[in-house]
Amino acid sequence: MWQLYQFPLCPFSRKVRLLLGEKGIGYEPVRESPWLRRDEFLDLNPTGQVPVMVDTDRGVALIDSTVICEFFEETVDKAAMLNGTAVDRAEIRRLVVWFDSNFFRDITAPLLEERMIKRLVHRTAPDARALRDAMKAAVGHLDYIDYLLDHRTWLAGPTMSLADLAAAAQISIADYLGGIDWKSHEQAKRWYVGMKSRPSFRPLLSERMDGIPPPSDYDKLDD
Amino acid sequence: MWQLYQFPLCPFSRKVRLLLGEKGIGYEPVRESPWLRRDEFLDLNPTGQVPVMVDTDRGVALIDSTVICEFFEETVDKAAMLNGTAVDRAEIRRLVVWFDSNFFRDITAPLLEERMIKRLVHRTAPDARALRDAMKAAVGHLDYIDYLLDHRTWLAGPTMSLADLAAAAQISIADYLGGIDWKSHEQAKRWYVGMKSRPSFRPLLSERMDGIPPPSDYDKLDD
Repeated sequence: MWQLYQFPLCPFSRKVRLLLGEKGIGYEPVRESPWLRRDEFLDLNPTGQVPVMVDTDRGVALIDSTVICEFFEETVDKAAMLNGTAVDRAEIRRLVVWFDSNFFRDITAPLLEERMIKRLVHRTAPDARALRDAMKAAVGHLDYIDYLLDHRTWLAGPTMSLADLAAAAQISIADYLGGIDWKSHEQAKRWYVGMKSRPSFRPLLSERMDGIPPPSDYDKLDD
Repeated sequence: MWQLYQFPLCPFSRKVRLLLGEKGIGYEPVRESPWLRRDEFLDLNPTGQVPVMVDTDRGVALIDSTVICEFFEETVDKAAMLNGTAVDRAEIRRLVVWFDSNFFRDITAPLLEERMIKRLVHRTAPDARALRDAMKAAVGHLDYIDYLLDHRTWLAGPTMSLADLAAAAQISIADYLGGIDWKSHEQAKRWYVGMKSRPSFRPLLSERMDGIPPPSDYDKLDD
């Protein structure tokens, strides 16, 4: 049985959980708070980051969300999320990198720092300017999603792919932390409501981080 | 014909160039300085980063070094650099992420900022403390390479893999910028001299960045 080390507001763990959900792969979630830098976890993964997946029966540890996704794409045919030709797959992977790196750096990471780490670790108030910058960056990223959906049914092409899972994972955390304003982004919103309504997504939406409540429309399917 | 947008001290472009060299894939290098934020290049890649590979005949653009490497692994069988079982491949990819992310963040990125960007763009002197921190971090990373080579012939296992190319690419830039002290790292040094002597590596070692000379032993094969 696979164990998945993660915490509820980790966007990279969510990307992996969406993939596992779509593929119907069972796993036991193990709560890990990487900011505590727990020795046993650092022995498992020297970077100290989640997600990590461990199969204790086989003595296998998979480290890093991209590594985990490539592993299950290679080993489980069901619900392939890297579809098409090598060029199609390059476009899917490009967008995964875009959301994992740029969206995370500009939006999810500062929101997590200001609204989660400062509350849980430093016990200080969030910086209003950093929050404003993140929300402004989110508008630009939603514009880009609108642009992609002008030309395509899903973010990377005609079928749902890992790009949609990576994007929805980042957006769901930004949305939980109050960083997303859907105004004037009807196309992106319609796509995201479609993602939220998938069975793979429902368990994530019901989870809460202690002391950090999401906005009231966060888990609503019609909003 | 593939074109590769890059500049001589980009570690991610070097990883790609080593892979192309090992596989015997021809390409035309195109000099791109991402810090200039050239409009035509931003139209090609909204992140503004190199490497990007373009096949103008087929209208294909490959963006991001990991995406490019996965593409050529999928399409060119020669000199496979993601070898073995799915678990073996996960270990190779884990180490690629380690060098692309952690080694780059701790060592290559600050060295490029202090010794290249400050000289070419800001015309200011490097910060001595940032340089010291990067060189200290390099010792830790060389320790980790020694540790891997205690158990394995190559960084990820019994054969050369993309992990070796990613590591050698980062180290070669750190070495060019004077950030590597090989003292007490005999195993890592022997492995790196082996990498330097490969035909895929030789063209990289002969390149120079204007106004930024490397140390005298940088391109020596016996040192």
